[in-house]
Amino acid sequence: MNAIQVARPGGDFELVERPLPTPGPGEVRIRVQACGICHSDLFVKEGLFPGIEYPRIPGHEVVGVVDALGPGVSAWQSGQRVGVGWHGGHCHACEACREGDFMNCVSAKITGISFDGGYAEYMTAPAESLAAIPDALDSIDAAPLLCAGITTYNALRNSNARPGDLVAVQGIGGLGHLGIQFAHRMGFRTVALSRGADKEALALELGADHYIDTASDDGVAALQALGGARLILATAPNSRLVSALFSGLGRHGQMIVVGVDHEPIEVTPLQLIAGHHSLSGWAAGHARDSEDTLRFSALSGVKAMVETYPLQQAKAAYERMLNNEARFRVVLTMDPSSN
Amino acid sequence: MNAIQVARPGGDFELVERPLPTPGPGEVRIRVQACGICHSDLFVKEGLFPGIEYPRIPGHEVVGVVDALGPGVSAWQSGQRVGVGWHGGHCHACEACREGDFMNCVSAKITGISFDGGYAEYMTAPAESLAAIPDALDSIDAAPLLCAGITTYNALRNSNARPGDLVAVQGIGGLGHLGIQFAHRMGFRTVALSRGADKEALALELGADHYIDTASDDGVAALQALGGARLILATAPNSRLVSALFSGLGRHGQMIVVGVDHEPIEVTPLQLIAGHHSLSGWAAGHARDSEDTLRFSALSGVKAMVETYPLQQAKAAYERMLNNEARFRVVLTMDPSSN
Amino acid sequence: MNAIQVARPGGDFELVERPLPTPGPGEVRIRVQACGICHSDLFVKEGLFPGIEYPRIPGHEVVGVVDALGPGVSAWQSGQRVGVGWHGGHCHACEACREGDFMNCVSAKITGISFDGGYAEYMTAPAESLAAIPDALDSIDAAPLLCAGITTYNALRNSNARPGDLVAVQGIGGLGHLGIQFAHRMGFRTVALSRGADKEALALELGADHYIDTASDDGVAALQALGGARLILATAPNSRLVSALFSGLGRHGQMIVVGVDHEPIEVTPLQLIAGHHSLSGWAAGHARDSEDTLRFSALSGVKAMVETYPLQQAKAAYERMLNNEARFRVVLTMDPSSN
Amino acid sequence: MNAIQVARPGGDFELVERPLPTPGPGEVRIRVQACGICHSDLFVKEGLFPGIEYPRIPGHEVVGVVDALGPGVSAWQSGQRVGVGWHGGHCHACEACREGDFMNCVSAKITGISFDGGYAEYMTAPAESLAAIPDALDSIDAAPLLCAGITTYNALRNSNARPGDLVAVQGIGGLGHLGIQFAHRMGFRTVALSRGADKEALALELGADHYIDTASDDGVAALQALGGARLILATAPNSRLVSALFSGLGRHGQMIVVGVDHEPIEVTPLQLIAGHHSLSGWAAGHARDSEDTLRFSALSGVKAMVETYPLQQAKAAYERMLNNEARFRVVLTMDPSSN
Repeated sequence: MNAIQVARPGGDFELVERPLPTPGPGEVRIRVQACGICHSDLFVKEGLFPGIEYPRIPGHEVVGVVDALGPGVSAWQSGQRVGVGWHGGHCHACEACREGDFMNCVSAKITGISFDGGYAEYMTAPAESLAAIPDALDSIDAAPLLCAGITTYNALRNSNARPGDLVAVQGIGGLGHLGIQFAHRMGFRTVALSRGADKEALALELGADHYIDTASDDGVAALQALGGARLILATAPNSRLVSALFSGLGRHGQMIVVGVDHEPIEVTPLQLIAGHHSLSGWAAGHARDSEDTLRFSALSGVKAMVETYPLQQAKAAYERMLNNEARFRVVLTMDPSSN
Repeated sequence: MNAIQVARPGGDFELVERPLPTPGPGEVRIRVQACGICHSDLFVKEGLFPGIEYPRIPGHEVVGVVDALGPGVSAWQSGQRVGVGWHGGHCHACEACREGDFMNCVSAKITGISFDGGYAEYMTAPAESLAAIPDALDSIDAAPLLCAGITTYNALRNSNARPGDLVAVQGIGGLGHLGIQFAHRMGFRTVALSRGADKEALALELGADHYIDTASDDGVAALQALGGARLILATAPNSRLVSALFSGLGRHGQMIVVGVDHEPIEVTPLQLIAGHHSLSGWAAGHARDSEDTLRFSALSGVKAMVETYPLQQAKAAYERMLNNEARFRVVLTMDPSSN
Repeated sequence: MNAIQVARPGGDFELVERPLPTPGPGEVRIRVQACGICHSDLFVKEGLFPGIEYPRIPGHEVVGVVDALGPGVSAWQSGQRVGVGWHGGHCHACEACREGDFMNCVSAKITGISFDGGYAEYMTAPAESLAAIPDALDSIDAAPLLCAGITTYNALRNSNARPGDLVAVQGIGGLGHLGIQFAHRMGFRTVALSRGADKEALALELGADHYIDTASDDGVAALQALGGARLILATAPNSRLVSALFSGLGRHGQMIVVGVDHEPIEVTPLQLIAGHHSLSGWAAGHARDSEDTLRFSALSGVKAMVETYPLQQAKAAYERMLNNEARFRVVLTMDPSSN
Repeated sequence: MNAIQVARPGGDFELVERPLPTPGPGEVRIRVQACGICHSDLFVKEGLFPGIEYPRIPGHEVVGVVDALGPGVSAWQSGQRVGVGWHGGHCHACEACREGDFMNCVSAKITGISFDGGYAEYMTAPAESLAAIPDALDSIDAAPLLCAGITTYNALRNSNARPGDLVAVQGIGGLGHLGIQFAHRMGFRTVALSRGADKEALALELGADHYIDTASDDGVAALQALGGARLILATAPNSRLVSALFSGLGRHGQMIVVGVDHEPIEVTPLQLIAGHHSLSGWAAGHARDSEDTLRFSALSGVKAMVETYPLQQAKAAYERMLNNEARFRVVLTMDPSSN
């Protein structure tokens, strides 16, 4: 049997048992070992994402072991350890896919939204959504890298910043505390920005070269005093703060937004033109990007700070995440005896 | 003597005579032949730009002949035809200059703002601000290329769009009517957007492959029907319209703003993240960029549509520009007999 | 029945009849209308490519109509006009494919080499190798764009050259005469290089701004007199000549090689370091690149100069190509009555 | 008085005393504290560089203190610690300079070649050639960063490799032992290649993740076993070895050559086309690049391994360098009592 946590809009998670799911053509079944809880699981739980069919199992930071193969799957084998992130598959046939631009597939699937995710002992996933997990990472450490990790790693490595450039990571939370580590290990002069003097020691420990307490300092002035940021990675979903920080960019500076707030960001034409600045966004990545994230983390020692809860306590775990109480990422683990 | 048109905040232009200016160290004196009128001359006339010392002569689309050399100038010779654009010189000593990033010089001078510009029979300019004019261009045609031309040419050639990509030019005015021509001659699939069906014939004549009348059509839907823009070059200074058009971008689409409105542009994180979009600005260019603009225009036949007025009628000429009556660029010419 | 031209190493083409091929899973059958003859068909005819299974039908510039669909194909419909180029399919499963880097698929198929090509009335091809043909292009014009066209278009649009830059196309043959047209329509200052004064008129007609006759002029000196090339597209397979031309590059100049000679190209470290030069290669492109090539050609009027022969005269047609007698591309056409 | 070491082609260095040099317009005088010995000092000593006027003082890894300012210098002050590298100044007036492309200035000066270098107690240098030295670096450590350091740092940070990519540094010498450190601190998966098993421990200590002993292993096969290099930084001036290593590149791999051998590198068109490979060079950098190199080294702890000799022993020091006996960089120091 398969113990799962089911979400329904407006209600609590519900722990139920179901028969094992059967992998369809092109799919694999995964025996889940760990699944990170992400702020965007809120979309599922609260019914905020259009088109979700309920009941639905959330969870898109999944690590487990291939358990069964659906028809037509030859690239994976039972027993391999794999991960599934936000990007849950693509069609191979639309214009974007035919260009290799899988992230923009018109039929892109999202794990835990388009199909059932990893708050479960077993799940199925399209083969193209699977990332191999390096032996050097244990499953609990790997899980948060599949969304919080890939998002920050991939945004940073694809930015215009070069080693030695001033890179600011705004926000020290699930994404930010990984972003600081990645930025440091990529050779950037790394600045962390958050609210409160109490975050400084942690920021420096994670690898930041500088810390700006935006509760007491003017972030823009502080960034300009350091020369202006070549890149600001905005991880906290707060468009008002993000807008206010834009002028902390230096020449040719780039602000990349990864935190989703529904309010607009505001910048004036002069803020864009003078100094040649840009504002853009970044969305996680596909399975190969996940593998790169995992390998880089294993190579360089980047590691999420996690709290673990058994699957059965998904409700409590989710609430710690939602209330910003977790330091910094919450991971559900599945009872090995039942596996 | 030197006939000049002087601006004073709140007043009209005043035509006066002064002795010929003497070029200082590193400067040249230019006998002006033509000077385009640009919307940003408004900054000077209305006192909107901080730090202008009045009385001031506007004009940053200047073409003329080198007339005298200040001490230390060896790169130019009397009799050469040269142009001066918005970027009026740089210090060679600040961090930006030492990187060759002259546009971001901390002491960058602006022609007609930091020093007297081209609404005059004679002016002086720093040697590093001079662009050589190709023989194939006459002075009246060259003038508008030094601001309206360079801005659109340089933004387009430095964008991410590749030949064949869908490039939208928003606004058909002084900048836009050049932007359409440049985009067409760079091999882009070019879309022009403006208000009114009456602009369509002109847009197609300038080289647009498609025209979208935003007075009657939804610009976003129309762009998406064409596949989504790889680049939107926003030339009209209207942040509300520019914001509304952002979702007309296709995958990896880039909006580059060159028109200055003081209202902010608004985009949500999701608009940036989904589809991997960016918003940035572009500022004209330096003297070598001007030369590239001029050469490209001569090579490919790009030509501004201009109305000419004698220097003495600067007031009337400026008002045609300001009231959007000109088709599309107004150029002051200097009386050859007095030269 | 299916009339085909079969190649066997060391022998002539042989015209035979076979039953219609049946499309396998993921394949389509195409009723061929036109098939270009490419210099690399020599690999098949002379047995120069490792691993070819004979008898083999050459031809990788194929245009025709979808005639039947194999199991699992839903993206194409009978009656659609499609093209197949050199890149004949990929596995979707290797590391390269999972990154969207289909050209470097470890199991990439080559049309007319890995499977039977277009010297035939009917052929089958993997669905992912198909490019849609724009209505504006007839089949004979489209055919050479699927190898000679895509190779030059794709190399040019992905180069570092910007509009207005000096771009040299070395060689005026099947590839070069298209490269000149593409370069011109992309807004490059285009230089054609070939041997003999008799090519000059043609080069200028194709859109070249300059012509260098390397039989009588020093190509390097002539390119440097024009300022040095930002890009040299080397289309003629002659490594000695290509090596000799390298110093015609200007600052940050890039030489891209698309013609295959088995002799090495030679450059010294100083040639690479001084002026910051690079040497690289380019290989055609995938089906979406073909579509971009075709659309750009339709948009801008790029057209191969072709000679046509009926399929039955493949031997004569091939020999004209091989002996450099054709101006410039030879296309086989299939008897409409038998179709 | 100024103790200097003078080179004359075919002769030994000669230690002589001269009056202090007087800085000309735009120049500063530097009281030298340390000067690295570089393999390219051979050009001076042996008369291998065209146009050197003898007697000439070599030395282009100079660190010292500003001692006097020539006319027109305002950007530097007496007492500041500065460095001078290979790039010894530019004209600000040629086409390259007007684009900010100082490295390609047609009148670029080379320290110790165009003018007297740092094998001396005092020297003069153009103001634009000066780099500020961070307080965190002592002068002996800073010196080798001004040529061996900047060359490898700048080549790496401007390459196409992204953090996590496989980057191979070929050669463990003056340049290579810095290249390995830089690559590691930029987050690359770093492979060092050299001859002999005895280099392995050092390579790993410098930060390499892998070591390939090319005396006993096939470098190409070993690189391919690791996935193929995204970048090979070829530091050893041996074109035969460099050519042989080219096929160790992975998809889209780039070989950047910084070591100067006068023999050509050989690559075939197929080696360039298949896998989309490139071969290019890199030349040191200008003063702002030096500052970035120094800051990055201070930030990340990159440090050359040096042997120091007093200026008086330049001959012995030079010979250790020339005979590859030094581990890895030789630095001349000036007698503090005479300073």
